[in-house]
Amino acid sequence: MASTEPPTAAAAEADAADSKAAISKKAAKKEAAKAEKLRRQQEAAAAAAAAAAAAEEADPLATNYGDVPLVDLQSKAVSGRTWTPLAQLEAELKDQSVLVRGRAHNVRAVGKNMTFLVLRERGYTVQCVLTVSPELVSRQMVKFASGLSRESIVDVEGVLTVPSSPIKGTTQQVEIQVRKIYCISRSAANLPINIEDASRSEAEFERAEQTGEQLVRVGQDTRLNFRVLDIRTPANLGIFCIQCQVSNKFKEFLLLEDFVEIHSPKLIAGSSEGGSAVFKLDYKGQPACLAQSPQLYKQMAICGDFGRVFEVGPVFRAEDSYTHRHLCEFTGLDVEMEIKEHYSEVMDIVDRLFVAMFDHLNQICQKELDAIRRQYPFEPLKYLPKTLRLTFQEGVQMLQEVGVEIDPLGDLNTESERKLGQLVLEKMLYGQHGLTFFLVDLSLDTGTIRSFTYFIDILWLLDHSTQCPVMMTQHTVIHLMSSFEG
Amino acid sequence: MASTEPPTAAAAEADAADSKAAISKKAAKKEAAKAEKLRRQQEAAAAAAAAAAAAEEADPLATNYGDVPLVDLQSKAVSGRTWTPLAQLEAELKDQSVLVRGRAHNVRAVGKNMTFLVLRERGYTVQCVLTVSPELVSRQMVKFASGLSRESIVDVEGVLTVPSSPIKGTTQQVEIQVRKIYCISRSAANLPINIEDASRSEAEFERAEQTGEQLVRVGQDTRLNFRVLDIRTPANLGIFCIQCQVSNKFKEFLLLEDFVEIHSPKLIAGSSEGGSAVFKLDYKGQPACLAQSPQLYKQMAICGDFGRVFEVGPVFRAEDSYTHRHLCEFTGLDVEMEIKEHYSEVMDIVDRLFVAMFDHLNQICQKELDAIRRQYPFEPLKYLPKTLRLTFQEGVQMLQEVGVEIDPLGDLNTESERKLGQLVLEKMLYGQHGLTFFLVDLSLDTGTIRSFTYFIDILWLLDHSTQCPVMMTQHTVIHLMSSFEG
Repeated sequence: MASTEPPTAAAAEADAADSKAAISKKAAKKEAAKAEKLRRQQEAAAAAAAAAAAAEEADPLATNYGDVPLVDLQSKAVSGRTWTPLAQLEAELKDQSVLVRGRAHNVRAVGKNMTFLVLRERGYTVQCVLTVSPELVSRQMVKFASGLSRESIVDVEGVLTVPSSPIKGTTQQVEIQVRKIYCISRSAANLPINIEDASRSEAEFERAEQTGEQLVRVGQDTRLNFRVLDIRTPANLGIFCIQCQVSNKFKEFLLLEDFVEIHSPKLIAGSSEGGSAVFKLDYKGQPACLAQSPQLYKQMAICGDFGRVFEVGPVFRAEDSYTHRHLCEFTGLDVEMEIKEHYSEVMDIVDRLFVAMFDHLNQICQKELDAIRRQYPFEPLKYLPKTLRLTFQEGVQMLQEVGVEIDPLGDLNTESERKLGQLVLEKMLYGQHGLTFFLVDLSLDTGTIRSFTYFIDILWLLDHSTQCPVMMTQHTVIHLMSSFEG
Repeated sequence: MASTEPPTAAAAEADAADSKAAISKKAAKKEAAKAEKLRRQQEAAAAAAAAAAAAEEADPLATNYGDVPLVDLQSKAVSGRTWTPLAQLEAELKDQSVLVRGRAHNVRAVGKNMTFLVLRERGYTVQCVLTVSPELVSRQMVKFASGLSRESIVDVEGVLTVPSSPIKGTTQQVEIQVRKIYCISRSAANLPINIEDASRSEAEFERAEQTGEQLVRVGQDTRLNFRVLDIRTPANLGIFCIQCQVSNKFKEFLLLEDFVEIHSPKLIAGSSEGGSAVFKLDYKGQPACLAQSPQLYKQMAICGDFGRVFEVGPVFRAEDSYTHRHLCEFTGLDVEMEIKEHYSEVMDIVDRLFVAMFDHLNQICQKELDAIRRQYPFEPLKYLPKTLRLTFQEGVQMLQEVGVEIDPLGDLNTESERKLGQLVLEKMLYGQHGLTFFLVDLSLDTGTIRSFTYFIDILWLLDHSTQCPVMMTQHTVIHLMSSFEG
């Protein structure tokens, strides 16, 4: 197998072919074959590297492409170069030279003289083109680009051009004519998840079935086992960005309304809400619990003259999962405030809070909402600038009018909640399709306890792991609870 | 003890006196005496209530003061009244009628015709004056105000006046001439903590000792046992507000720098950082751990193409406390970001982050900083708009020049850190007193590991329970760690 000739890429390929043949002959001695295969692969890799080095010598453009050695990436120097984010690659940069870094989303060679490489960064994609051209792009350079494995991290320097016809399959409507290309970190050749596969909607699968096309469906277990790949899909990136903006706007709004953010203990001596649904642990020889809510501490803060407080943090419930709303750990958005004289003061805040959050998401998360909608279509949320309020009696009456049997003193079940949402949408928001946001004031004349509930279906908006219980206190003994569950 | 005469307040007092005398006679039968005392107290209270009712009948201004019954506080109606926050009571409201709600911070009767009542709300205080005056303030009304227990919640309506000389002991430099006064929630007459006592500085105690004045010192156990009272002190309210603003500015700054906020799981299957310092618990029959850091999830987010992430949330360490920096649970401010080519990119962000936070606190938390400083004097923080950076070698040299023995390849101990801070302050910031903020770049030519540390003494700024480890990743294998501990 050893060659006295300087190894070339072709030689390396021949080596590899020999190697395969050799292994098939030794099929009976699997273990030995494996070791042999590994040795030969290493030899082949070494040969390929030597070949690449040789090609470099041969190619006067060799310094314009290649794998960057790890040691050169480790804070060697500050070069002063600027990487342009893919999101900023617009037609106005036409004819300018840009440097970008992204993942190899897709690589498509067209013969030996041309390769298309789609780079992806934070959900944005751009097409890079390598065409063999004297003194600019060598055939070896095109070959290097064609051989990049998907998801590898790549630096590209090139000139921005604007094609006359729209580019399908990339978010950016420009192309980069590549002049230099370096692989910063090479991915394994076969990843367990292809991001394109993981990003498909049900509609795509249905269309493919009709045309007989075979599409790979990524199962839930694979997604969870390789979560770092799964979260690279535009829809998943979008969900995380929207979650971030939900809590961002929640905080921004409440701070402007004179609320103080607190961070209450999660390790506590007793259960916060009683019952058995509490995680217990040993705290240096003493029994301890994980907080089921920040309830006690929020109320302490109110009694401590904070006036208005909120917290965004983990909440622990040792409950079994009966519905998709039950979780052992979720991020709670909690609010507690003094009431001057009437619980409607709380509704006033919460109404405006939610409308502010919805407006905010519509204003700054359109790209993320679109990305989610492409994979998981959803109806738009319908809401009024001043939130619609129904009394419980009005809600019951609306349901009874359409024949739903309901106990006027009982609870609404999930089905009647959904029906009520539909009725509100049709009768009061004059829509046929969509999700609604409205309030049902559950107060009955039972004396000291009053409660109300905000209804919505917003699985697209809040992650399943996010609930929003809103707790309120007055200086005296009035306790109100509203539950907002996605 | 029963009287056929209509009971009066005087009679009730006489009853109480009798009652005490009776108990002292029965000292041998303590239990019986206790029961008797309780019965008599109840009788006395009933008598007092009857007396108050009688006084109400007699006083034509009776509707202008009194205790508001609980049932009237429970969301009876929306009156449309507006309560002016104490913070907004300024001279420009002179001669206007205002309605305020606050706690009775201090009550001082001057004879039977005049009472001064200081109200407190969120650390702001205002003096309310009741002076007997025909058709405005009755003697009974003054008596009612004089009898308010400290920390009771009180509504006051009155006219704003501006005294000619400054008012000592209140934050607001106006007075309210009381026209109506109602007690919303009456506190117990003797609370375990007096807020004034809990707010004193060491300097006050020293002055009192010199003049022979006796001041009550509130011990740490009492503070912790009655935390809802202790957190009402201006310094404690200030600490919580500053904590809130620290995380607020942290988030605001990072969001503008394209970071995404994440909320990572705290219940995990294995320990996040290894070692024994992990809380273990039973998760439905399986072993689980509390997260020692969001490290794994932050790095997953970076590998998942988020680019830059941060988290503010609880961190659990089952460590014994060796220093005031060791805590079993604290709120971590965590950052993780991609590096393009050099770890100085992280230092650039962190430098600007801290300077932005310090500037923010100086701009909007002056009142809170002053409140803390009054009770716990501290030196101001000295920092440069562009954070001072020292290499480890420079730091070692500075220490060696003043005779500190130090291993040029070892760690700085707490003492040498403090000494270095003092040297930086004197030599580079030209100050004599204060705390400094600066960076020591700990990178040594050890290959792949580089680290740096920000030094500061900011116990006044971050609560003991807040630490700020900053973790960073590059796409490849560079891991940087900076620890910021208060």
